[in-house]
Amino acid sequence: MSKFMNLARKFNCFYFNGDLQHCRPFLVCGKQVGVMQARVVEAACRYPDVFQMDSSGMISMHPSLTTYEERSARINHVLSQWKEERLFVTLKGWRNECYEVRTGFADPPLLKMDRSAACLFGVRQYGVEINGYTRHPQLGMSLWLQRRALSKPTWPGKWDNMVAGGLSVGHSVLDTALKEAEEEASIPAYLLANLRSAGSVSFYFESERGLFPNTEFVYDLELPPDFVPHNSDGEVDIFELVPVNQVMERIFTPEYKTTSCPTTLDFLIRHGFINSDNEPRLPELVELLHIPLHYLYSQSSSQSPISPK
Amino acid sequence: MSKFMNLARKFNCFYFNGDLQHCRPFLVCGKQVGVMQARVVEAACRYPDVFQMDSSGMISMHPSLTTYEERSARINHVLSQWKEERLFVTLKGWRNECYEVRTGFADPPLLKMDRSAACLFGVRQYGVEINGYTRHPQLGMSLWLQRRALSKPTWPGKWDNMVAGGLSVGHSVLDTALKEAEEEASIPAYLLANLRSAGSVSFYFESERGLFPNTEFVYDLELPPDFVPHNSDGEVDIFELVPVNQVMERIFTPEYKTTSCPTTLDFLIRHGFINSDNEPRLPELVELLHIPLHYLYSQSSSQSPISPK
Repeated sequence: MSKFMNLARKFNCFYFNGDLQHCRPFLVCGKQVGVMQARVVEAACRYPDVFQMDSSGMISMHPSLTTYEERSARINHVLSQWKEERLFVTLKGWRNECYEVRTGFADPPLLKMDRSAACLFGVRQYGVEINGYTRHPQLGMSLWLQRRALSKPTWPGKWDNMVAGGLSVGHSVLDTALKEAEEEASIPAYLLANLRSAGSVSFYFESERGLFPNTEFVYDLELPPDFVPHNSDGEVDIFELVPVNQVMERIFTPEYKTTSCPTTLDFLIRHGFINSDNEPRLPELVELLHIPLHYLYSQSSSQSPISPK
Repeated sequence: MSKFMNLARKFNCFYFNGDLQHCRPFLVCGKQVGVMQARVVEAACRYPDVFQMDSSGMISMHPSLTTYEERSARINHVLSQWKEERLFVTLKGWRNECYEVRTGFADPPLLKMDRSAACLFGVRQYGVEINGYTRHPQLGMSLWLQRRALSKPTWPGKWDNMVAGGLSVGHSVLDTALKEAEEEASIPAYLLANLRSAGSVSFYFESERGLFPNTEFVYDLELPPDFVPHNSDGEVDIFELVPVNQVMERIFTPEYKTTSCPTTLDFLIRHGFINSDNEPRLPELVELLHIPLHYLYSQSSSQSPISPK
């Protein structure tokens, strides 16, 4: 097994090793939007007017909650109680920033919940990441990496892509990219004109905090060799310009944010630095950067893909 | 459903609508390498010294065939008989060019079979495709498309990416790309120096010929605006330089080779022409260009991904 493939299994640890047998499908309006681990199911069953378990073991938002507003308010109430009770470690990182819950990215939102709670329900999370790169006269092709501030609630002090941000309620994909580029790295507008959409990555990670079926919208931004990003919102410790061959070493260290590796690997593959010569399992690696998150929750699609089992 | 998503369901028709219930796993050396449709199982059962069906309905190459050479020779004998009997339409296109059968792309080959027969056993097929593009002063970003010769055994007369070729026994990925670029489009060596590896696409198509779990290694080649490809092996009717916005119309026509669309769509996404603004379901589309072909055949991996069902 190559180092790249090992890494892909690490950020897809729930896809490969997830204990799905002890998880329950989570449904809203009859459509599956996530899965809940046993410890979350147990807590949810204390609120029979918010969560309903049917005879087959599926957990639904109570059908009497018929609007986006009602569902969002009731789940926020439950989450606030869990936060006070210190029931789940992830809620210590309460964000006061909400994520939408939807059956697919382009479907209407069914409810919103605090970003820190999404991993308790295994609902898909979306973010934006920008690969900032430069063709440096001495270093060659290089990527700008950020070290996350020690004050961040998740992955403090870890190396990360130049710009990254979650897609929260009320912001479009491109708006989020532009906003984060300005706040995190102070990229001026005339340079952001070069921002290029380059697709997305999808992976399924699990940590002690919960389940992360994550999709990152990926952008590339070529920067002039003399430009140096600097942080303006306190979320970044330092930026460092790292030649691509050093990036290809650093992503294997525990100092690199595991869930940022898919975007970095995708950049290295799209730009030819990882190829069939240095990674014989290239097709398998590429597939693991784009796993079918939108087809894993079968209750949410009328036509299910064939089963891998 | 957007036009792009409809197209992705078309070239993934077996992934979404495949009648897997009536297929049998196909194993070599105890590892699953494909699936066989009922009509193929029936024909295979006439050769009990080559194919063995176990009590659970799985078909294996007979365990007495212990080497690559033995297995390849015996399956070639069977296929030659089927070809003479005109049992399967795909064997009319016999290629005298063999594909390797492996559990994963980097695993040792277990046997080889004529390219035209791979779809009878649902074994993964690999190819190479080159997006030839130019930043034209008048037309803007444009792709070179080829119209396949009417004499080709598959997809005659259809529009296709500039260069495409199957990965046959004894050729590496890069060698195949360079060889096909020279034979199909007469690209001179000094221009091929710009060839860039850009990843791969994976999809699962089905036609009247059989099953196509295909992976294409994708390359981009930027060409100067004054260069015009010309064919030297008789496999191409004409080449045409098509502006990207016209390519984005042509791929929906029946005149475009369905199984070449993933590579074209991947190019349009990586270069920002299809993005979250004009395709709200971008993440779902990207996932469908990279479905987990190497994880669908569970008998071939010790750790199976979680089931989508």
